[in-house]
Amino acid sequence: MARIYNFGAGPAALPLPVLEQAREELLDYAGSGMSIMEMSHRSKTFDAVIKGAEANVRRIFGVPDTHAVLFLQGGASLQFGMVPANLLRADQTADIVHTGSWASKAIKEAKLYGKVNLAWDGKNEKYMRIPDEQELKLTPGAAYVHVTSNETIEGIQFKTFPKTEAPLVADMSSDIMSRPIDVSRFGLIYAGAQKNLGPSGMALVIVRKDLAARVPDNTTTMMKYSTHIENQSLYNTPNTWAIYILKLVTEWVEKQGGMAGVQKLNEQKAKILYDELDRTAYWKPCAQKSSRSLMNVTWRMGSEALEEKFAKEATKAGFDGLKGHRSVGGLRASIYNAMTLEGVQALVGFMKDFEKKNG
Amino acid sequence: MARIYNFGAGPAALPLPVLEQAREELLDYAGSGMSIMEMSHRSKTFDAVIKGAEANVRRIFGVPDTHAVLFLQGGASLQFGMVPANLLRADQTADIVHTGSWASKAIKEAKLYGKVNLAWDGKNEKYMRIPDEQELKLTPGAAYVHVTSNETIEGIQFKTFPKTEAPLVADMSSDIMSRPIDVSRFGLIYAGAQKNLGPSGMALVIVRKDLAARVPDNTTTMMKYSTHIENQSLYNTPNTWAIYILKLVTEWVEKQGGMAGVQKLNEQKAKILYDELDRTAYWKPCAQKSSRSLMNVTWRMGSEALEEKFAKEATKAGFDGLKGHRSVGGLRASIYNAMTLEGVQALVGFMKDFEKKNG
Repeated sequence: MARIYNFGAGPAALPLPVLEQAREELLDYAGSGMSIMEMSHRSKTFDAVIKGAEANVRRIFGVPDTHAVLFLQGGASLQFGMVPANLLRADQTADIVHTGSWASKAIKEAKLYGKVNLAWDGKNEKYMRIPDEQELKLTPGAAYVHVTSNETIEGIQFKTFPKTEAPLVADMSSDIMSRPIDVSRFGLIYAGAQKNLGPSGMALVIVRKDLAARVPDNTTTMMKYSTHIENQSLYNTPNTWAIYILKLVTEWVEKQGGMAGVQKLNEQKAKILYDELDRTAYWKPCAQKSSRSLMNVTWRMGSEALEEKFAKEATKAGFDGLKGHRSVGGLRASIYNAMTLEGVQALVGFMKDFEKKNG
Repeated sequence: MARIYNFGAGPAALPLPVLEQAREELLDYAGSGMSIMEMSHRSKTFDAVIKGAEANVRRIFGVPDTHAVLFLQGGASLQFGMVPANLLRADQTADIVHTGSWASKAIKEAKLYGKVNLAWDGKNEKYMRIPDEQELKLTPGAAYVHVTSNETIEGIQFKTFPKTEAPLVADMSSDIMSRPIDVSRFGLIYAGAQKNLGPSGMALVIVRKDLAARVPDNTTTMMKYSTHIENQSLYNTPNTWAIYILKLVTEWVEKQGGMAGVQKLNEQKAKILYDELDRTAYWKPCAQKSSRSLMNVTWRMGSEALEEKFAKEATKAGFDGLKGHRSVGGLRASIYNAMTLEGVQALVGFMKDFEKKNG
């Protein structure tokens, strides 16, 4: 078996020890005589899995008792709708910071439920930077303020989060669990699992419990946060496999030293890559320096043909997923928690080599 | 490793060859150098998986071109809301056949969107039978007629489906892919995956494409069938792992001779178990004979204490998941496609033995 270096944006690389444990336990989980996939979500054995996963998230993130931790289905895409369905009424305004491709989805869905104010719009700057806090135009009495902590496609990331009067809602899909955050400052955090948490088919939601009471009674039961809070994510059959993998991933993160540990490694990895991008004009990094993402590193080259050649030869050399998103082109290396330092070093070696041959 | 006999109602037993293949490929799918869980849902390799899964479903079910095959998240529970969100307006009526616990969920969610007429209600008979077609009181011009093809908790199953003028919608969560059906007669079929299709965290939806056009424009994008039809289940990142396992399960079903093959085996298994229940008054089968489910076999014993003892000793003897649903009590053996004939025979052996010792 030859494992390759997977720089894909998501579903993304998982820690090898997690995959190895999942393989080991696949036919018989914890002596139960069945696969975790075959197990009742109401069994004692699975109860320990979901409670363990929640406890790990609470410990690693430092989630206060005011907030619920939920494992939902539908990924971040369903959250784009669930957030306004729960928090925004027709006569209210949501302040949304428009930083790029994913923010635009939050905007589109919120407009179906109420008014949307673009607190800032990076469109004229091609979404190549994150605004300063002073640039935001917030609405007094807004239902919530929404930010996208990391724009996966453009490769920009909030370094600090704005202080807001209205509850702060953050889509953290592509940088969740990659650095310490102060959960108490957020009304709601959501993230698709398939970058830093586990496989696709799940969203992690951390929501201040009092906000869940805002939902109108006539909302579909599954779309209410209150349903899932009351039932501890077991109103319906959850994605048991994804919860199990998330438990293994969070255990792995704790072995890396928790949030502080993975942050340090993520900073190291990003520095190696950005240093290479800054070394020579052969590479043309996309994001403004102060807004550079530690998760998704984006750059262009002299021509599209050259970018194409780079991506193709990289794949052949065992570096996969480096093509930029089809909507923006260029190149992108996603270096989530599970990407190793060695993988990034190897990629930089390949880049130097490519420049020599094609520069 | 000691695999036990898993009679749980869901998430339920999967075919052993499927689990073995998943284990084999877990770290490196099809020579890609990565796990299927780590793979972009837009990669060529995954495209072959999802297209293959759809093709298998179309072939096994005989899905006509008029119908789309969708792999969605949120299980059947989200479908309880999605069906009326797409098909039912405030001034319209949904005819729902109330056969038990799961039908009641379809009723509850439909009422949030429009009027509900109980076309039949088994309440006074404790949901122990399926109505005859002539008993149904249908509304002229109804938006749809909803049936629950198999009530998992009560253990009753439609043997034939009513002919209706309005589109027929069926929740087939607990008997999907267990017997041949004529898909062209249905407007919409939905099923949580975790009984006969694969792991939890997914719903299979087969929907007549023209019905999807009914949805109001202001519906959340993820709740519209049209979104998922237009994007062939790839509007957002789907549950890639569940789609992969479903592909393996459908390949396994074809090896069993497709729908006709699994039906034959399911009939054999159910006969063995019902014959034992009918052999002696020691067992008290719940469902009326003509409505007996081939998937969930329910029975009572002389006392709750005896039922408790039976379930406990069965677990010790390697037969798991036999306790009835907490809402109805008693005993239940779920014998979905993946339960072997040998497993049912072994259970009947245990039952005879138990009667001898405790009769």
